[in-house]
Amino acid sequence: MDSYRERAVVILSGGLDSTTCMALADCRGEDIFALTFAYNQRHIREIESAQAVARHYGAHHQIIDLGAVFAASALTSAEIRPEVASFLGAAGVTPLDATGRAETTPLSMPASIPATYVPARNILFLAYALSFAEKVGARRIYTGVNALDNPGYPDCRPEFIAAFQRMIDVGTKAGTEGRSVEVFTPLIEMNKADIIRFALELDAPLHLTLTCYYGENPACGECDSCRLRLEGFKLLGQSDPISYRKG
Amino acid sequence: MDSYRERAVVILSGGLDSTTCMALADCRGEDIFALTFAYNQRHIREIESAQAVARHYGAHHQIIDLGAVFAASALTSAEIRPEVASFLGAAGVTPLDATGRAETTPLSMPASIPATYVPARNILFLAYALSFAEKVGARRIYTGVNALDNPGYPDCRPEFIAAFQRMIDVGTKAGTEGRSVEVFTPLIEMNKADIIRFALELDAPLHLTLTCYYGENPACGECDSCRLRLEGFKLLGQSDPISYRKG
Repeated sequence: MDSYRERAVVILSGGLDSTTCMALADCRGEDIFALTFAYNQRHIREIESAQAVARHYGAHHQIIDLGAVFAASALTSAEIRPEVASFLGAAGVTPLDATGRAETTPLSMPASIPATYVPARNILFLAYALSFAEKVGARRIYTGVNALDNPGYPDCRPEFIAAFQRMIDVGTKAGTEGRSVEVFTPLIEMNKADIIRFALELDAPLHLTLTCYYGENPACGECDSCRLRLEGFKLLGQSDPISYRKG
Repeated sequence: MDSYRERAVVILSGGLDSTTCMALADCRGEDIFALTFAYNQRHIREIESAQAVARHYGAHHQIIDLGAVFAASALTSAEIRPEVASFLGAAGVTPLDATGRAETTPLSMPASIPATYVPARNILFLAYALSFAEKVGARRIYTGVNALDNPGYPDCRPEFIAAFQRMIDVGTKAGTEGRSVEVFTPLIEMNKADIIRFALELDAPLHLTLTCYYGENPACGECDSCRLRLEGFKLLGQSDPISYRKG
């Protein structure tokens, strides 16, 4: 705890983008409070990666278990591979029975929204980060959201971030006192190669990151997430420090 | 579960205002999914009241434990009475040690913000309610926020609700598809007497509600919350169905 450094909250998934945000916050000399959200995701290894990255930077780190709040989706249901979830439709209606247990009935979902959509995920992450930022006196929240990689996700667009910022400005103590917590999205308009170049320049510990959709180690090298990452490294003529089953 | 009724999420604290929202949703024939947030508040009885109200209306009910996310404040610290918290300053800096345990150091806080302020509380409640609404297919979130009773709370003002609505409109799947979840604040501009009159007209089970700041039963009758409620009933010439130690 260093009282002379500005405090920043970083939303840290343990992936490449959020690790790049950690590197940037560290480079700017900020005292980092990393937040990782657990939401029944299949890859517990994502959390282990986040822990390793937080340790790398000597950051404060808190893992928040969002429990069973989220709907059934390809990211939260261990049994469903993404292509199947896409077929079923990823949004679920989850009636709660008398014991509080949920039972899931798939509903149809428009094709333009990816199957991995989780209801209001970034809104919830940012709301937590905001509460935490006010709590520790942080002036800035870093989030690695990226519009280009996620064209179907409404909560990854600059318009959404601007609307969230406006909501902070009018809805928080700090905001109404003219010292609003800033939602900082340094990667929002970058492509994957740009992000990797940026990460390498900042000496980010990319060997600790997890990108594979299936959370595999070595990474599968075949899912969309792995492919996007591998293409980025290839475009830059750099080699990826993590291991892959293929390639 | 009735597939012919519209679904609504109601943020239910077990107090008079949120119970009035339950009554309104019930009157409008909506299938109610009540959400109650536990955040280390001293009065566990608030949750018991919420459960009783949810049972009264045969509503689905989920209690969400927000754990230790919030800062020390008069509403979350069992040891500190509000007047003391106000003196200390209610915002806390909570460094996390290596084991993830938090230690709280009070910071000063501007006098214009009430001591009971919890960082971004309504933002977090609404973010959860929104995620839940998208999950169950609800079109509307009821919240009993009230601007007149809470002049110092930025997140109880109509400007904040409008900004949150805008954020939903651009940041969610439903919003971008033109069928946004609506944040509905029927009580936001009412005074306490108006709310009580409305509640009585809707036959709301006010005997089940808990208002006392200290969570006492019988209610203390002396805290600001009890006084405001008693004044409201007095203005209407009605008697309050709950018991008080005094008066």
